Amino acid sequence: MRIDAYNLETRAPDDLHQLRQLLDAGVIRAGEVIAVIGKTEGNGGRNDFTRALAMSALEHLFAPRLGLAPERVQDRIIFSFSGGTEGVVTPHMIVFTRTDEPLAPRSSPAREKRLAIAVGHTRAFHPEEIGRLPQIQETAALVRHLAASLDLDDLRDVHLVQMKGAIPRFTAEQAANADHAGRPLRCDMVGSRAASALGVALALGEVQPDQLSDDVVGRDFALYSAVASCSAKPGLDRTEIVLFANSPAWGGDLVIDHEVLQDLLDVAAIRRVAARLGLDRPLTDPRSSPLIAAFAKSEADPRGQIRGRRHTMLSDDDISDTRYSRCVLASVLAATLGDTRVYVSTRAEHHGPLGGGPLALIARVGQGSP
Amino acid sequence: MRIDAYNLETRAPDDLHQLRQLLDAGVIRAGEVIAVIGKTEGNGGRNDFTRALAMSALEHLFAPRLGLAPERVQDRIIFSFSGGTEGVVTPHMIVFTRTDEPLAPRSSPAREKRLAIAVGHTRAFHPEEIGRLPQIQETAALVRHLAASLDLDDLRDVHLVQMKGAIPRFTAEQAANADHAGRPLRCDMVGSRAASALGVALALGEVQPDQLSDDVVGRDFALYSAVASCSAKPGLDRTEIVLFANSPAWGGDLVIDHEVLQDLLDVAAIRRVAARLGLDRPLTDPRSSPLIAAFAKSEADPRGQIRGRRHTMLSDDDISDTRYSRCVLASVLAATLGDTRVYVSTRAEHHGPLGGGPLALIARVGQGSP
Amino acid sequence: MRIDAYNLETRAPDDLHQLRQLLDAGVIRAGEVIAVIGKTEGNGGRNDFTRALAMSALEHLFAPRLGLAPERVQDRIIFSFSGGTEGVVTPHMIVFTRTDEPLAPRSSPAREKRLAIAVGHTRAFHPEEIGRLPQIQETAALVRHLAASLDLDDLRDVHLVQMKGAIPRFTAEQAANADHAGRPLRCDMVGSRAASALGVALALGEVQPDQLSDDVVGRDFALYSAVASCSAKPGLDRTEIVLFANSPAWGGDLVIDHEVLQDLLDVAAIRRVAARLGLDRPLTDPRSSPLIAAFAKSEADPRGQIRGRRHTMLSDDDISDTRYSRCVLASVLAATLGDTRVYVSTRAEHHGPLGGGPLALIARVGQGSP
Amino acid sequence: MRIDAYNLETRAPDDLHQLRQLLDAGVIRAGEVIAVIGKTEGNGGRNDFTRALAMSALEHLFAPRLGLAPERVQDRIIFSFSGGTEGVVTPHMIVFTRTDEPLAPRSSPAREKRLAIAVGHTRAFHPEEIGRLPQIQETAALVRHLAASLDLDDLRDVHLVQMKGAIPRFTAEQAANADHAGRPLRCDMVGSRAASALGVALALGEVQPDQLSDDVVGRDFALYSAVASCSAKPGLDRTEIVLFANSPAWGGDLVIDHEVLQDLLDVAAIRRVAARLGLDRPLTDPRSSPLIAAFAKSEADPRGQIRGRRHTMLSDDDISDTRYSRCVLASVLAATLGDTRVYVSTRAEHHGPLGGGPLALIARVGQGSP
Repeated sequence: MRIDAYNLETRAPDDLHQLRQLLDAGVIRAGEVIAVIGKTEGNGGRNDFTRALAMSALEHLFAPRLGLAPERVQDRIIFSFSGGTEGVVTPHMIVFTRTDEPLAPRSSPAREKRLAIAVGHTRAFHPEEIGRLPQIQETAALVRHLAASLDLDDLRDVHLVQMKGAIPRFTAEQAANADHAGRPLRCDMVGSRAASALGVALALGEVQPDQLSDDVVGRDFALYSAVASCSAKPGLDRTEIVLFANSPAWGGDLVIDHEVLQDLLDVAAIRRVAARLGLDRPLTDPRSSPLIAAFAKSEADPRGQIRGRRHTMLSDDDISDTRYSRCVLASVLAATLGDTRVYVSTRAEHHGPLGGGPLALIARVGQGSP
Repeated sequence: MRIDAYNLETRAPDDLHQLRQLLDAGVIRAGEVIAVIGKTEGNGGRNDFTRALAMSALEHLFAPRLGLAPERVQDRIIFSFSGGTEGVVTPHMIVFTRTDEPLAPRSSPAREKRLAIAVGHTRAFHPEEIGRLPQIQETAALVRHLAASLDLDDLRDVHLVQMKGAIPRFTAEQAANADHAGRPLRCDMVGSRAASALGVALALGEVQPDQLSDDVVGRDFALYSAVASCSAKPGLDRTEIVLFANSPAWGGDLVIDHEVLQDLLDVAAIRRVAARLGLDRPLTDPRSSPLIAAFAKSEADPRGQIRGRRHTMLSDDDISDTRYSRCVLASVLAATLGDTRVYVSTRAEHHGPLGGGPLALIARVGQGSP
Repeated sequence: MRIDAYNLETRAPDDLHQLRQLLDAGVIRAGEVIAVIGKTEGNGGRNDFTRALAMSALEHLFAPRLGLAPERVQDRIIFSFSGGTEGVVTPHMIVFTRTDEPLAPRSSPAREKRLAIAVGHTRAFHPEEIGRLPQIQETAALVRHLAASLDLDDLRDVHLVQMKGAIPRFTAEQAANADHAGRPLRCDMVGSRAASALGVALALGEVQPDQLSDDVVGRDFALYSAVASCSAKPGLDRTEIVLFANSPAWGGDLVIDHEVLQDLLDVAAIRRVAARLGLDRPLTDPRSSPLIAAFAKSEADPRGQIRGRRHTMLSDDDISDTRYSRCVLASVLAATLGDTRVYVSTRAEHHGPLGGGPLALIARVGQGSP
Repeated sequence: MRIDAYNLETRAPDDLHQLRQLLDAGVIRAGEVIAVIGKTEGNGGRNDFTRALAMSALEHLFAPRLGLAPERVQDRIIFSFSGGTEGVVTPHMIVFTRTDEPLAPRSSPAREKRLAIAVGHTRAFHPEEIGRLPQIQETAALVRHLAASLDLDDLRDVHLVQMKGAIPRFTAEQAANADHAGRPLRCDMVGSRAASALGVALALGEVQPDQLSDDVVGRDFALYSAVASCSAKPGLDRTEIVLFANSPAWGGDLVIDHEVLQDLLDVAAIRRVAARLGLDRPLTDPRSSPLIAAFAKSEADPRGQIRGRRHTMLSDDDISDTRYSRCVLASVLAATLGDTRVYVSTRAEHHGPLGGGPLALIARVGQGSP
């Protein structure tokens, strides 16, 4: 098994001309596509319809090629789009394929680990489970299951857990009942993101079971995952997960690694992971960069300060802090990595320390690399 | 003569509590203040009233201390405020003082150069001069005059020419007459910024007289200054200039240096100038940084691309490209320099190459430094 | 021939559940739909992708019902969507059908006029024609042709000419050549809207041929049409026109009428046209209103004043004047008409007097009405 | 005693040229000014510094004329500024003066009521009182006291209670203690506005004491005042109140009246109060209108609908619902009243019914009027 990845610039949310060419040319086979993750030029908020436009275009592109109705395509391929290409970010999508070609045996004991991906979804959640232990535990169970399926040496080889977090619909009556019972619903973006991240942390041993309770969710930010990345989606009953790891059982020439950013300006962490992936070597042609994808989570520090000084992102009523924090981190990433195709999504409860967040990079390595 | 500089965080555009304390304590003497340059948390546009609020507060602070009416204070001290602290930028003001203390003679030939500042203003402009040769030439004459007043070794020791560019008022009739004469007015922000920058370039030998004509203004962007920084102000009849250089005839412990950024992501240039100023050494306490001030100009590349890839700053009708480009460059500067008190203003016609712009840093040096 | 119209609320730009139901129930026949005009909840600007989303959804809805490929649907049905539902506006679409049922003969001479619609498109334009006489004349020719096809008593029975104005693509070389020839291209939104409106005015006798020249376009705003409504679309080679009139040769129970608004606050004009259509009678149920559709053009008066007093729409760098002017006029229309499904699009060069614009209402009338 | 009022357009938040002229000409005497209420062209949010700019300018204008330090001026004159002149609103300020000239005796019993104003402030509040009964009761006590001071015939002659609501500062510890005690602080804008309005309602008999409890605040919106208008201000310890009524004991030629708007489009209510004040008669010159001031509160209906149809104000992440709702109501008021100098502030908990709000108009009446 091997993963290939194609990072394609788009001219508009529904621009698929590059992907269509690759499919038509047989470079990408529709049946091998397992996930498409991308950034579109919307505002990333409630009235961002660019994600719907991108996904609708993809459904109509893949449906005839897969012999499916358009509305069934997402049962086969995970589409994960995040709005907001503030500043220098180039709208783009990364198409991941999984090929079943038998792995050429490598000479032990020097087997090298390569990027491996597993996808899955949790059971459907009840609204009262969101933001609480049941969501954490179910998420953790799925993460462990997906990791196990990849024949990893160690759970530390999991470097990114990309999630679309469940926010099941509920009635006003359900909300009122929960209030009366003294357990108000947390069935919103904050709750779902927070519990999803803690679920990953639990699965990977970043937090211990006895540290967790309903009370710590959204409160004790010392508890976090360094590899979770969750965007929650209203109306989604179950959480969809794409787990990225390096496995000795997988082939190909892609590798993933990660670091935790301590704040939006943490250049040192970016450089460390880039160096480990060999991305710090000078390029003759920026188009030939071995960097395949960069995923990060941003957050305007809720304490109103960064590096001991005031920032104004949280008191601006013209522009949302989500747009600012994405712009800041994407600018720093693009400048440090030399590539404007970076994927930064925002709000990061229990995703790295307060004001910080996780960063994962995927790179192409030579035969003798990492 | 020596320059001292105080970089003060503000809690609001009219927050002067730190400056008031320094004045009350005698650390800063009102009569020695020559310029206050700062960033306020507005939008930097036409309806940004934070600059007026800051300057009104400063006028009322200094008026009794200088024995002047408030409306006369700006005849004595140049106030230059730029709105827009997008992202991580900390609103701040830098107070520059010039002290006449006799300079202790230094042992030649090792005389070290130190930050020197001269301020002045051009004659009043006619509207038809703006954006054309007369503005360029008058600006150049003043720049040469100010540079000469500082006893420089070389014009290459000029590292920043901060300007408030004239945009004199005109009547609809004047505009119509200019149209009929086939020489439409250029009396706007673009024209004034462009001609101001070319005036600096002419004065400092960055462009040659025979390269200049009315036609090249706003057209031939291969002509530029590497040290100009102009914001134009509607209603201002004359251009106000603050010229920063290193002079062997001046004392103190501040030094300025500059680089031209090739684009918004030009980390290498930032690092070069930081290294020359000794800012690349690790700090034990970020508050003790020798960095005093960072000034830069940003611009969303008008060609719609950066590093060969699309950006969306110029096709976004929700947020202005000026806000994005400031946010991007300020983020990169803050991350690279480790300080969020960076001054980035925007739109940079003939200020560095297209899509790029000038960067100047002021640092405190030890006795044996540069 | 008769026109029917269905004004359908939408829950999102791609929400077609009401239209699908009407099609499935046979109330609307796909083959009879001639135009769908609607408002979507975008910003109405360059990065408004809600229109594309709505039109893509409609293409996929109609394609199988018409036996066409999705990309061919717009050859059969005109889709015209305008972004921006600022304030109280309810996103909606109006589906127009034309039925060929033979018209029951009416007793002359009392034949009543009913809504009649003709659609068509101009020839493809060259970039240098846009904003100049050739575009005006070609547009006028088509308007006359469409009006003639409807068996009108009088050109004064034309009450609305909805246009998607051409803006053909051009190269930088073409633009430079036009500059050198002293006839700079006007191939942009302003030029296309202006010439389209003047084309309508010419066709309908609102302006005389000898009043027109290239020079008056975008200059002499005393020349205007009272019934034109143009949105220009980059990349469109030809102008698409939907002409609305009342014809004695058409049946049904819909009637259209119009007035020119003198400014954004012209309640008197709104009331006059509403009264003529019988819309001023009290309703027992607001859902049973005979109002079918309201179309208007808004503009923030470029002189910076309204009713002799300052407005701030043109000096706000946070929110576009297009969003403000739509919000203002839509609010006034909704309040006066008692319906939030109003279609207001913006920028109105030569569409009514400066600061004003056209208003057209479509209403259902009883058998004995108008 | 008599009230005079001057409605002055401003060119910028700190433009006082009209007021200065009136003071210099002796038309307005500084010592008789009791309140200045105005709209400035900011965003009305946390980063709106236009209000501070206006008030600072007023302090420096009045200080020498009153023989006070600038920071003491607001102890003598209430300055109440609201940011946000969305759409057609003309930035303006209304200067209210109270003159002690003995009232010429009028022939009883036909004494006519004229505008009377009383100003005052509550005691300082503790943070835990805000949004709860203590704030309601203290507010009510002051309203009753102010009303009593005006020699009213009836409490129904109170038509507007303009309030700057207290939001005292508190520590994180106070907030945590309140949480632990099961009574979380409500010391925010919502809490202060809500309790202030209910305080007015209690004082004027619009709600009965037994209907009130901590629980109804922000919950039972059937309880409301028809004349309250509160903006809450962080950092203010006490609530400032300006009470407007018609009193038979006061002279002059100004009268106030009010109506409750059922929603943002309630033209009928606007017309009723305008008609009672004689504002529905045609004017020869709009500048001679007897309308002096219009005060209203707006709110985007939190149920997401208006008149049974969807609005998008609450799901727009580019522009705040506060800006939209002000724009809508101000447009409807300006169109109906024919004047763009309308004061609309936003968020209206317990100010009129849900989605609606209070409207008060002040007009100049002839000798024989009302």
